[in-house]
Amino acid sequence: MTSEEFRRHGRRVVDWIADYYDRVEGFPVQSTVTPGEVYAGLPPHPPEQGEPFADVLADLERVVLPGITHWQHPGFFGYFPANASFPAILGDLLSSGLGVQGMLWATSPAGTELETLTLDWLAELLGLPPAFRSTGTGGGVIQDTASSSVLVALVAALHRTSGGASGHVGVTGQYRVYCSQAAHSAVEKAVRIAGVGSDNLRLVDVDPVTQALRPDHLGALIEADQAAGVVPVLVVATVGSTSTTAFDPVAAIGELCRASGAWLHVDAAYAGVAAVCPELRWVNDGVACADSYATNPHKWLLTNFDCDAFYVADRATLVGALSVLPEYLRNTATASGAVIDYRDWQIPLGRRFRALKLWCVLRWYGAEGLRAHLRGHVALAQEFAALVAADERFEVMAPHPLALVCFRLRGVDQPNEALLARLNAGGRIFLTHTRVNGAYTLRLAIGSPLTQETHVRHAWQLIRDSA
Amino acid sequence: MTSEEFRRHGRRVVDWIADYYDRVEGFPVQSTVTPGEVYAGLPPHPPEQGEPFADVLADLERVVLPGITHWQHPGFFGYFPANASFPAILGDLLSSGLGVQGMLWATSPAGTELETLTLDWLAELLGLPPAFRSTGTGGGVIQDTASSSVLVALVAALHRTSGGASGHVGVTGQYRVYCSQAAHSAVEKAVRIAGVGSDNLRLVDVDPVTQALRPDHLGALIEADQAAGVVPVLVVATVGSTSTTAFDPVAAIGELCRASGAWLHVDAAYAGVAAVCPELRWVNDGVACADSYATNPHKWLLTNFDCDAFYVADRATLVGALSVLPEYLRNTATASGAVIDYRDWQIPLGRRFRALKLWCVLRWYGAEGLRAHLRGHVALAQEFAALVAADERFEVMAPHPLALVCFRLRGVDQPNEALLARLNAGGRIFLTHTRVNGAYTLRLAIGSPLTQETHVRHAWQLIRDSA
Repeated sequence: MTSEEFRRHGRRVVDWIADYYDRVEGFPVQSTVTPGEVYAGLPPHPPEQGEPFADVLADLERVVLPGITHWQHPGFFGYFPANASFPAILGDLLSSGLGVQGMLWATSPAGTELETLTLDWLAELLGLPPAFRSTGTGGGVIQDTASSSVLVALVAALHRTSGGASGHVGVTGQYRVYCSQAAHSAVEKAVRIAGVGSDNLRLVDVDPVTQALRPDHLGALIEADQAAGVVPVLVVATVGSTSTTAFDPVAAIGELCRASGAWLHVDAAYAGVAAVCPELRWVNDGVACADSYATNPHKWLLTNFDCDAFYVADRATLVGALSVLPEYLRNTATASGAVIDYRDWQIPLGRRFRALKLWCVLRWYGAEGLRAHLRGHVALAQEFAALVAADERFEVMAPHPLALVCFRLRGVDQPNEALLARLNAGGRIFLTHTRVNGAYTLRLAIGSPLTQETHVRHAWQLIRDSA
Repeated sequence: MTSEEFRRHGRRVVDWIADYYDRVEGFPVQSTVTPGEVYAGLPPHPPEQGEPFADVLADLERVVLPGITHWQHPGFFGYFPANASFPAILGDLLSSGLGVQGMLWATSPAGTELETLTLDWLAELLGLPPAFRSTGTGGGVIQDTASSSVLVALVAALHRTSGGASGHVGVTGQYRVYCSQAAHSAVEKAVRIAGVGSDNLRLVDVDPVTQALRPDHLGALIEADQAAGVVPVLVVATVGSTSTTAFDPVAAIGELCRASGAWLHVDAAYAGVAAVCPELRWVNDGVACADSYATNPHKWLLTNFDCDAFYVADRATLVGALSVLPEYLRNTATASGAVIDYRDWQIPLGRRFRALKLWCVLRWYGAEGLRAHLRGHVALAQEFAALVAADERFEVMAPHPLALVCFRLRGVDQPNEALLARLNAGGRIFLTHTRVNGAYTLRLAIGSPLTQETHVRHAWQLIRDSA
């Protein structure tokens, strides 16, 4: 493809995307294809000769689009959102175009330094402690997801607790990891991958109303483990849990970590970005005592997936845990010690220039624009919660300080399961579920930039009428 | 940003990228900025109010571009390439635009099924064994990098060897991992992350001429370990090593794995894609006995980073090792067992729709186009190697069947180090180095789609004149 052809096809793709957002509301939110339908709709063998790009776009319409569940649809209320925005798309396009691989500072200094700067900016916007900035003892890095951040935190914690031995001798001691029952499944996945084993993951009780980790129970578990000669290595505190946006008491957890020597990782994947708004800055209360912290601009801060902002208070420990330097990566900048090589801050070696999209978002919206975006969603969620609370058939199942509302029909589970299935089959809205204190619960998470008051009211109307 | 504004800015970004490729040859390949220069060139604080997109593009030119080492420059001969191509950029743009998150089949069926199809297509193009296709017992998945593939393979291997216990009890047994001295540093990183520990990584001797793993030495190491009660869990065979494109004898290694029960992972990150050409299909000889295999379309197959194609022969083991199913991810499609949930094939939970860019590449170029691309680079490398071999001051340091040539000035290391520094400082070409049998060696890896015969001849002229 020549650069002239790229200009032509590129314009067409840009228009296709603009058109997609203009018409997205017309699609059923959840794809209605059956398993195998998309696969069977395309040729079973790759083409021998090249094909026109127009044919690709035609198949995108014919086969791919019906198989899409539209995360950017204004009626998408499932999971947590995966925000996209036009400035982020353009930033990502610039990254694809430049095609640099930023494993080392030397392989594209701007790739590293724009990331450092952008994460310092974000730390300032969120009011994160000075240690998390590159000007302090730590700094930020973009990971793909909060799952990878938990794994990286665990590897660094094992490194610190073992005095640097774990990377060499393996996970030979008996270590324990702690998180609340409401923590993300990524914690269990990380302890499995890192060789600690899920038997060594302690699920701490939560308060039945707030769903927050009970520090008294955490303290008792740590004490019992230490008495048995088991070493607490990591505690994951959740700021805005996946099920209900529960907030663990980070400061109290931090005290237990300091006393026991365990690493404190704060998983603020969804909620952390809310701190851009001064009135929501409390979400990050207590993170000054954390060893690491992660929040996802790709969830609720208009930056398309993947973009998880991971911060550490002590970058030397992180690099010590993850650095391996073969001959073919040696270079004078690395040897000087004056630069960051982000390959040592993450699981993979190679890395994409993801800072560009976050940079585009922070600049296009500015702090004021980001606040307006977040505040709008919080207000809509409060309005929705009030509608639910005013209908005596329903109950609100958990506090809802941000943009997620958990609710259910009073009584047994089955009508709730049926209600969710009916709503999603209707195609106008899409919700997902969880369990709160064992009860099947519907989740309505507001997150699409296209979602307006009218969509939330319409959602409530559909829910009320389908109940 | 409205969709109309996006059309306007989008066109400008597309043109910026087209212009970038039109003028890329005019930039020094390696950035000449000093540490901190890019960071200092931008405001230390994020903007309070949003800014025009034109200002972002202006700063891209003013601050970012000077900090770029141009991987797509025709004179970029460093590391292994990270190919970009216009069709891939467009596919990636479509992915950014759709903004779907394909952690589950249900969260966008087309995201999963297009990936399955595209990796089946690629398996066919590479002549991979039937077990690696979704129609067999295994299948393919896109990982970010070959590093993550090694880690995933190791976690799956531990799961299988321990009879499913490792995920629960941790890495409690004494396990050994094996790879050649020339294997990628990702193997050491993986054994550290997975809790096995680098002390349990055995580096197998290589043949001094071919740099290939010596199976007799591997056999002896395994035998000694087994006699000592240590369990061989994983052998990584390298197909096209990073230093010299050495090829380990995969079939012989496979026999030792079968006898010992160790998992065989084939790391063909750079070289595997060469099998699109029938005359180069030998690169994948023996992989029929592998448990897993990885090759990177993002290195040499015109698909921009990140896109590592990872294949397993037995998907059930992989899923068993990595699956954690919390309530909020349960859905009827998953429960039916009729679909693939790729979250269980990788470290993170969330995932980007990366199949689109690979699909665009395979369709735009077709098998013939891909072959022409690869063959062109192989021919250029052979021409370069002949020029080096004809100059008695130089020596070629290793076999060069693909597009990497390792060479050096005869004699001591220092003049070679000085030569590399001089060449890279010149800005016209960029090479990196390694060590071969201890000797400092220059690497010239041909990989940019823009690289023509004239660039390779010019590179040789610069090398010859600078020597």
